[in-house]
Amino acid sequence: MSMEQNRDVSAPIGVFDSGVGGLTVAREIMRQIPNEKIVYFGDTARVPYGSKSKETVTRFSRQIVRFLQTHRVKTIVVACNTASAYALEDLEKEFDVPIIGVVKPGAKAASQATRNGRIGVIATEATIGSHIYSQYIKKINPDVTIYGKACPLFVPLVEEGLWEDPVTDEIAKRYLNELIDIDIDTLILGCTHYPLIRSTVARVMGEKVTLVNPAFETARELRETLEKKGLLNDAPIGLGENKYQFYVSDGAEKFKTFANSIIKYGILSAKTVNIEEF
Amino acid sequence: MSMEQNRDVSAPIGVFDSGVGGLTVAREIMRQIPNEKIVYFGDTARVPYGSKSKETVTRFSRQIVRFLQTHRVKTIVVACNTASAYALEDLEKEFDVPIIGVVKPGAKAASQATRNGRIGVIATEATIGSHIYSQYIKKINPDVTIYGKACPLFVPLVEEGLWEDPVTDEIAKRYLNELIDIDIDTLILGCTHYPLIRSTVARVMGEKVTLVNPAFETARELRETLEKKGLLNDAPIGLGENKYQFYVSDGAEKFKTFANSIIKYGILSAKTVNIEEF
Repeated sequence: MSMEQNRDVSAPIGVFDSGVGGLTVAREIMRQIPNEKIVYFGDTARVPYGSKSKETVTRFSRQIVRFLQTHRVKTIVVACNTASAYALEDLEKEFDVPIIGVVKPGAKAASQATRNGRIGVIATEATIGSHIYSQYIKKINPDVTIYGKACPLFVPLVEEGLWEDPVTDEIAKRYLNELIDIDIDTLILGCTHYPLIRSTVARVMGEKVTLVNPAFETARELRETLEKKGLLNDAPIGLGENKYQFYVSDGAEKFKTFANSIIKYGILSAKTVNIEEF
Repeated sequence: MSMEQNRDVSAPIGVFDSGVGGLTVAREIMRQIPNEKIVYFGDTARVPYGSKSKETVTRFSRQIVRFLQTHRVKTIVVACNTASAYALEDLEKEFDVPIIGVVKPGAKAASQATRNGRIGVIATEATIGSHIYSQYIKKINPDVTIYGKACPLFVPLVEEGLWEDPVTDEIAKRYLNELIDIDIDTLILGCTHYPLIRSTVARVMGEKVTLVNPAFETARELRETLEKKGLLNDAPIGLGENKYQFYVSDGAEKFKTFANSIIKYGILSAKTVNIEEF
């Protein structure tokens, strides 16, 4: 199953998600480590992951890691909270390539941010049900209390483009009210779609609550990991030289349109891959 | 690819959908043809289909037909508008078992119901983009005008349980207002989830608009097809005798809970199948 680790500093970073949400993570990597190539895979044929089981999400993730390895990636970012929650541990065991999830960096940042020891997590049903944020945070600080809340409608609302809309406000109030009532001071945006409705969430929660964006923290951890391993690329790469490559399992054109609304580099093309063959 | 057609009247009917929506069709079959066994498959690992491509939906549908054939089904109902729109034609060519979709029966009923020749269709992006209802209706009556409207948030709202809710009302008004403005007198509920918010749609459209439920029409067409082929089962079957069997590709327990809110027979169990192997 495993392949020899790629020590080539100019090799790309593999980034994957169930669909478009992971683009918020890719965007942070582009901002914070601008000299790295990225191969992005979005599993648009089987999106979403957040309502599915650990077994299924792990099987899907394994296929994607195999696909990314055909691109000789030097490291892989699981840019999906659900896949990080369910599959990361198995993937780390099965593959030699360094793999970074979004949960651990988010948990670390939240542990540092809280003053009153009450942290909220909003995420998919799967991520909340896994209690993964809680586990990571408790390891850092056992005295913190974590409150998880699944928000299943946030992803479809974001994908429908209702980033600023009274309906999204109303749904956000319903989901978040209980987190306000229990006086959290820190809230983790535990799904890669949620940074796109960050301002709605911020408005509902009020200015006293610190929002933690795991995408930002993950790009920072990725940079540190690459530096530590001597894998950080210093030479600038032009956008023309296949710097950012996008693959999906379905609907390449639709993906391109959505991706261009998130990433401002102008995504020229996305290619379709039959991921079930990997 | 094809198998010999099963002429055994006591053989089950295969019914499939991308997930739980097709249960509204299964429910109609149970009501209208109570002496038939049903093997239901919901593709919960890859749900939803409505935002995915023709190629992908056809590949998924083909795997499911192969799975249903292992149960020696005497006929198959594609209880999903998207799969009926995208895959039915290919499936009919590739397999010998009689296959019935939900689109044609719905189109027929709408053609008969309209008085002013203006029919609306609400459905997924995929079904609307395929123009399949329009094609079928035009074959029956070329003078009818059809207006399609994709309603991507209806499925997540139904699955979140907001069947009667101000948010669903608000979203329904946004989607349906343009259909009211162009004075349709008949509206096809072109997604198997939509009968579950039928009362919301009816309230927004007003009482002058006839709602067509393809699930109901499909069960009627199935009955006729079985009668014509001499395949209708007359002998009563007890619920205990594996009368209704449910299979899913993921999350059997969650499926069971939702299914029990739709079908009142008390679904005892649902089994998980790795559909990618078929």
